[in-house]
Amino acid sequence: MKKITYTLFLVALAINSGFAQLIAPATKPNPAQREMIKRGYGMFIHFGINTFNNIEWSDGTLPLSSYNPTNLDPDQWVQTAKEAGFRYVLLVTKHHDGFCLWDSKYTTYDVASSPVKTDVVKAVSEACKKYGIQFAVYYSLWDRYEPAYKDKDPQKYIDYMKNQLTELFTNYGSIAELWLDGGWDREPSAWGIDQIYGLVKKFNPACAVSVNHTIVNEEGKRDYTQPGNMTVDNKYFFQYFPSDFRLWDPKIITRFDKKQYLHEGKSYYLPFEHTICISKNWNWFEKTQPLPTRDLDELEELFYWSTDNGNCLVMNVPPDQTGRIREYVANTAIALGKRLNLSSNRPLPKNGQFISLNKPVTASSVWEDKNGSFDGKSVNDGNMDSRWAAKDTIASLEIDLNPQEPFNKISIFEYQDTKNLPDGFSQIRIPRIQKYSIDILQHGEWMTIYLGDDPIGDCKVVRFAQDYKTSRLRFRVLKATAAPSIYELSVIRMPEISALR
Amino acid sequence: MKKITYTLFLVALAINSGFAQLIAPATKPNPAQREMIKRGYGMFIHFGINTFNNIEWSDGTLPLSSYNPTNLDPDQWVQTAKEAGFRYVLLVTKHHDGFCLWDSKYTTYDVASSPVKTDVVKAVSEACKKYGIQFAVYYSLWDRYEPAYKDKDPQKYIDYMKNQLTELFTNYGSIAELWLDGGWDREPSAWGIDQIYGLVKKFNPACAVSVNHTIVNEEGKRDYTQPGNMTVDNKYFFQYFPSDFRLWDPKIITRFDKKQYLHEGKSYYLPFEHTICISKNWNWFEKTQPLPTRDLDELEELFYWSTDNGNCLVMNVPPDQTGRIREYVANTAIALGKRLNLSSNRPLPKNGQFISLNKPVTASSVWEDKNGSFDGKSVNDGNMDSRWAAKDTIASLEIDLNPQEPFNKISIFEYQDTKNLPDGFSQIRIPRIQKYSIDILQHGEWMTIYLGDDPIGDCKVVRFAQDYKTSRLRFRVLKATAAPSIYELSVIRMPEISALR
Repeated sequence: MKKITYTLFLVALAINSGFAQLIAPATKPNPAQREMIKRGYGMFIHFGINTFNNIEWSDGTLPLSSYNPTNLDPDQWVQTAKEAGFRYVLLVTKHHDGFCLWDSKYTTYDVASSPVKTDVVKAVSEACKKYGIQFAVYYSLWDRYEPAYKDKDPQKYIDYMKNQLTELFTNYGSIAELWLDGGWDREPSAWGIDQIYGLVKKFNPACAVSVNHTIVNEEGKRDYTQPGNMTVDNKYFFQYFPSDFRLWDPKIITRFDKKQYLHEGKSYYLPFEHTICISKNWNWFEKTQPLPTRDLDELEELFYWSTDNGNCLVMNVPPDQTGRIREYVANTAIALGKRLNLSSNRPLPKNGQFISLNKPVTASSVWEDKNGSFDGKSVNDGNMDSRWAAKDTIASLEIDLNPQEPFNKISIFEYQDTKNLPDGFSQIRIPRIQKYSIDILQHGEWMTIYLGDDPIGDCKVVRFAQDYKTSRLRFRVLKATAAPSIYELSVIRMPEISALR
Repeated sequence: MKKITYTLFLVALAINSGFAQLIAPATKPNPAQREMIKRGYGMFIHFGINTFNNIEWSDGTLPLSSYNPTNLDPDQWVQTAKEAGFRYVLLVTKHHDGFCLWDSKYTTYDVASSPVKTDVVKAVSEACKKYGIQFAVYYSLWDRYEPAYKDKDPQKYIDYMKNQLTELFTNYGSIAELWLDGGWDREPSAWGIDQIYGLVKKFNPACAVSVNHTIVNEEGKRDYTQPGNMTVDNKYFFQYFPSDFRLWDPKIITRFDKKQYLHEGKSYYLPFEHTICISKNWNWFEKTQPLPTRDLDELEELFYWSTDNGNCLVMNVPPDQTGRIREYVANTAIALGKRLNLSSNRPLPKNGQFISLNKPVTASSVWEDKNGSFDGKSVNDGNMDSRWAAKDTIASLEIDLNPQEPFNKISIFEYQDTKNLPDGFSQIRIPRIQKYSIDILQHGEWMTIYLGDDPIGDCKVVRFAQDYKTSRLRFRVLKATAAPSIYELSVIRMPEISALR
């Protein structure tokens, strides 16, 4: 629905008299980045026309009439975020389909033209104020509905985006972060990122801005750097400049993540923001068919991993077709927050010390494949992209440890076979390992300290009632349905073990 | 090895000058029973010639040479018991095979005649003194080795037992409990239980004595009363009199367990002692093949159930062929103790309030079988013997609740298909339910508060981040490999939910 907003006009006028603060070369976080790192943990909300069509992506042709929540309750979304200890809410205001969750005067493909006209951006931003949580927005560059997108002059669509972002940044209070997506659909230079960045910074210099797939291997080429490779400063380049942080949805960064990235010969400090789904099936928009949420142990380990080392995590917690976050999904988020004792003013909790990182590994067998390396050392390189794969179903790994360093926790992330779900986007994963043991060398003999026939699956956490020390730890697969494969096996010393779960 | 023990003779003489204290009709615990109830939680240790032959029961023909622990360490057993918060150790001193774990002068089928002559009863009893834990003994009535057992005069074997029990009760310090087993092999009256009881009480009036399968439906008949039926006072009878408590290894008592049992027209107070294995496979003697231990959640629920209502639990934690409790097994016991914060002087922790007990249940379908009833109401009758079974794989149950009563935990014990293991005794269990939800009625609509595709198995515990209230709770099986069946589904209010596991 297009209409003149007089207030917007006045606010825009006022802000334009300020100055655009662009990112400067640096070796430590600037104020906007410091705020972002301090926030650390956000709730990602995908809700829109796809929610009502049981689909992840759509092409702008879904009818407005299909967007029809029967019990729309954005207050419940933010209340859940607050109870779960999230420090910001990152709302998808427009996905690739172009459907806008606010009443935009530049399009009619928005909530205001749908059966349920609630301005969702307004409702969420106001609930954020009510509950004392920061508000952030996701906005898709790629737009499969908007006619201006197809104009041969790319500036037409850039102007469209600038108009829409002006609406967002002037009508809904302070916006802490802008998450841009879908840049793969045209050349990086065609999006006017510098214009968008400059515009946003005029409205709020403290807003952190980024575009998905921020970093590339070679300046000017679309050759995304894998997060697992980001272990070297000043080696990789901005694809989209300026950006305040790095995105590579939905990959997980290496534990040795470095922060310095290059643009035109200068080096910039860039934290990383992770994106994970609360559901086991990686669905971003909630489906008609309810899907189980991840195990709390896995979420806890992912939380630690993703918020460590000055990086951030947004976890997707999507509302369903009625317009509410399903109770069992909210429960999982809140239970995690209670388990981790997240509260708004404390620093985020940390995992223990990883005593196994990059220690020598010996594997009983290694899968041979022209597609890559599956060495044993992949299990403790701090990199979730790489994995060990055995050649045989019965297999084992040995890791040399410092016998002076105690541990009381082990986390294991298993590679699993995947099966695509009918929505064409999400997947279920099928564990391979069925029985396994963890052994340590004591006085020259192997001692089994854990024996399990429970699924490892996405992540298994084994906690011990006492500290152990050993010169060598062994992971043995005793039964498996296929050759086992492990992304990471981390031997960890938690500072306290009082809460044995 | 038969030899004269002069000290034993003197001690026996001294104690015989005392008086036999028999159990008296009562409606509350006597001093010996009070002590037993206060202990509450014991470590059961099965270790003997079967340990070395990968078998549960043997017939007295296994060669003494086979008993050959390479690293016998009873101190480690009791140290583990202490760290795990057990309050007594119940040692199998002689199993049905007749092999004795001490140097008995009445047999040569004992440790003293084996390759490793350590008096295990002595070592354990002394370790119990060292660690401040009480010592208790299991002794099999049934003896498949001892020649006197086959004498046509049953008194010959009774005298043999009295001699051996005199050794046990005079050479090893105070014995808190005597657990007699194998009574099924001859008529109850042929065991001389009254003589044994009288003898033991002369040595230690505070010793609690019982014979497995203590209670029967009809006086004088071998018709064991199922623990699940023990919900009526003064209805069932002693099979073995006198006894200080009830045994029905390895069954679990109803939550409505009653304490008054009859003998010759008089009513006696009798607590129940449960027996469970720490292993998932219910192996009592440790096998060559290591087997996984139960999940901590299951052990926690079984602990609460078994130690509630003035009853006791002994958990079997068996040493292996080397003579030590395997590290991963000890870890599980210790982790449970730490989780429950068991320490020697506190009362044992309790479960929350069961708000679903005996509330009306509606099942979508019920299995029809001439062997018994599988009604929906079996899931909340507080009875682990009975179970609901559905007729269809997709099935559900609804339980009416008091909408004023909050809950924050649900425990589910699933019936599973079993497969016998090669040892001829232990089993593995195969879950049927693969996906399920827990829903509550809120404002006339169903709301899913938990959705799981993890195995329920022996016991699944679902914890909630908040209290719920509802008039109706539904358990839905969404996917199963066979018609689902549930022993108990308990809706529980824990006093605090801070430790979300």
